[in-house]
Amino acid sequence: MIWPRRDFKFPNTVNGLLSEPEGDSEMRPEIVLFGDSITAQSFRSGGWGSALADAYSRKADVVVRGYGGYNTRWALFLLHHIFPLGSSSPPVATTIFFGANDAALKGRTSDRQHVPVEEYTDNVRKIVQHLKKCSPTMLIVLITPPPIDEAGRQSYAESIYGEKAMKEPERTNETTGVYAQHCVALAEELGLRCVNLWSKMQETNDWQKKYLSDGLHLTPEGNGVVFDEVSRVFREAWLSPEEMPFDFPHHSHIDGKNPSKAFEERCL
Amino acid sequence: MIWPRRDFKFPNTVNGLLSEPEGDSEMRPEIVLFGDSITAQSFRSGGWGSALADAYSRKADVVVRGYGGYNTRWALFLLHHIFPLGSSSPPVATTIFFGANDAALKGRTSDRQHVPVEEYTDNVRKIVQHLKKCSPTMLIVLITPPPIDEAGRQSYAESIYGEKAMKEPERTNETTGVYAQHCVALAEELGLRCVNLWSKMQETNDWQKKYLSDGLHLTPEGNGVVFDEVSRVFREAWLSPEEMPFDFPHHSHIDGKNPSKAFEERCL
Repeated sequence: MIWPRRDFKFPNTVNGLLSEPEGDSEMRPEIVLFGDSITAQSFRSGGWGSALADAYSRKADVVVRGYGGYNTRWALFLLHHIFPLGSSSPPVATTIFFGANDAALKGRTSDRQHVPVEEYTDNVRKIVQHLKKCSPTMLIVLITPPPIDEAGRQSYAESIYGEKAMKEPERTNETTGVYAQHCVALAEELGLRCVNLWSKMQETNDWQKKYLSDGLHLTPEGNGVVFDEVSRVFREAWLSPEEMPFDFPHHSHIDGKNPSKAFEERCL
Repeated sequence: MIWPRRDFKFPNTVNGLLSEPEGDSEMRPEIVLFGDSITAQSFRSGGWGSALADAYSRKADVVVRGYGGYNTRWALFLLHHIFPLGSSSPPVATTIFFGANDAALKGRTSDRQHVPVEEYTDNVRKIVQHLKKCSPTMLIVLITPPPIDEAGRQSYAESIYGEKAMKEPERTNETTGVYAQHCVALAEELGLRCVNLWSKMQETNDWQKKYLSDGLHLTPEGNGVVFDEVSRVFREAWLSPEEMPFDFPHHSHIDGKNPSKAFEERCL
């Protein structure tokens, strides 16, 4: 694939400095990670967001737009701000990674965050439709919520609230699985790529402790699964860091005696 | 401090979606990390860049502009592209972190990267002057190169090249220290804040193995020092994440029964 929207023009040098490009230059395409706390925390040590940023180093900017506690209903309020229509440089790719809060059970301690599965599906559809309006060529990847370890969630609540901890789970793996199924079905309906994290993680023994730190959020190993899966899907969609150009010459291509040559010759 | 350049206007909602902002919205200020491989690698697991991105989560975007192998002479070629004059949204803060390659010794294996210390100083001054032209209020932090562990560098070379490894060091701690001193002096001359990493790291016993992975690049602990020092300097300059507003309401401020209220009322 020829790189989309790569209208970067390399200028001539003036007095050893590159001359001024017109307006803000767009050196690198943007990959936006849009989601809830699992996205917001993705730049912690071992996080899937920072691993992506590292993998696309000097090729693309990975921009985190994670909102802890948000469900898709609240995410809609942000949509036009994070992804304004008419932007001259919309992201080349966006991950949409909600559902963990939508799937909180009605009438339990996280009731406030609950969104019925039909509305969740419709909200994700609205997000996708908006992104496609921003840029019809944008790669959009849906990510299902991860599985829930109810025992781990209970232990976590007890470690925080002691005896006052919830007695009944505020999320169940079964219900979250229904949201995951709807996410997968929506991706099929809309012809989008999807990471079924809920299923993928449960293929591994001891996924409850291996991948989840509190029954819901991800351990570094869990972050590794998201990174591997998102990387795989991006590569399948031709958004492979190896195929993408560096923003500027690799240092080994710079002639120490005549450095400007590498900068002049490079036509991105 | 009142947040600079925060001309964000929160719009009214239309049909439950936020109405279209004019042009590209600038929701978050940008912090740019400009430097060589030690900046480029700062989003690896345990890296100082991703730790900063996490600390400023939902407050500022941390943008990595690290170029492995680059010295300040080559960095000048990128200056107008990374920091175009006339940008409507220049970074609020930039770290300038070069010198490790400039300080490579003349006539040794990394000769190509060598830049005399006077030119290094002048190049960093040019970078600063350009950034201040972009935005006179930009917080600019100079970072000196880290110390060099010559034995560690030699071991690393042998692990890669075996018997063909360099016999004489391509960098020495003493010479790199001269570059660090010039960096500190330049910061004083220009009234800029500075992280003297070369000195700071050597205050700790076993800094050679504790902070450096190959005699030059940083271990996770070494990354931790950079993160701590840059965070400290940012805070001293009032760029403290705790003082900065969230880009959008915290989920706990959203009324589950009337979510639009939180979005309408929030005037950033």
